[in-house]
Amino acid sequence: MTDLFKTLETAERGDTRPAEALLAAMRWNADGLVPAIAQQHDSGEVLMMAWMNRQALEETLKTGRVCYWSRSRGKLWRKGESSGQVQQLKRAYLDCDGDTLLLAVDQAGPACHSGRRSCFYVALDEMQGEVVSEPLIDPATLYGASH
Amino acid sequence: MTDLFKTLETAERGDTRPAEALLAAMRWNADGLVPAIAQQHDSGEVLMMAWMNRQALEETLKTGRVCYWSRSRGKLWRKGESSGQVQQLKRAYLDCDGDTLLLAVDQAGPACHSGRRSCFYVALDEMQGEVVSEPLIDPATLYGASH
Repeated sequence: MTDLFKTLETAERGDTRPAEALLAAMRWNADGLVPAIAQQHDSGEVLMMAWMNRQALEETLKTGRVCYWSRSRGKLWRKGESSGQVQQLKRAYLDCDGDTLLLAVDQAGPACHSGRRSCFYVALDEMQGEVVSEPLIDPATLYGASH
Repeated sequence: MTDLFKTLETAERGDTRPAEALLAAMRWNADGLVPAIAQQHDSGEVLMMAWMNRQALEETLKTGRVCYWSRSRGKLWRKGESSGQVQQLKRAYLDCDGDTLLLAVDQAGPACHSGRRSCFYVALDEMQGEVVSEPLIDPATLYGASH
């Protein structure tokens, strides 16, 4: 079997392949998932990483609103459905071996459940980790007091 | 048991925790790995995603040169050891639940084994995927003709 992603390594800029062939050739893990990195399209800030199954990816590409697979809840997770902090898809990219997605998004408000813009807020060095950002919004406001 | 990452959600900016406690509390997967996203520190370009075990992370923090765990080769992978395209670590970040790393790096030349700057070179929409960048360097030059 020819590996579609292998053939793309030497493809020219502008070459295309059908989405269906690419999705079929993607390297989903044993749980049928791939990691998806969300990056704010204009600032370049990396906001979060979550997981998608094929259904979540297809819905995201179709609707333009980012939908992940929640591993903890075991169901589709339309980002912002409880917090209101939706992600609009600007453009999606597959990586060279078809096992990771990069999503250029427009994130309303905080991406992180802690109320921070980005989930990556603990800077880590050999000695210590340091909290480097503050919540934009109190999580109790995002999710209600019962969260 | 108190979850260290849970307590950090409400920590103040500038609060610190020992690196050893954070590494011990990280949510390594069943193979002892976490995904690590490499982002060019100045341009913001997301270059690649690979995996780290604890040893790879500790080496990276200690040496300042990025070391991953190669799942295909089953060993530590000092990025650039065969291609020469090393990644210098500028800063590392843990995410809110301690299961993903973001690495701000300075990448020499291409990060991708295809010779492209970034691994994310197939733009994907509902209909098709399109190759959106070209190799900076012929991979044969990066790895030698035997690769």
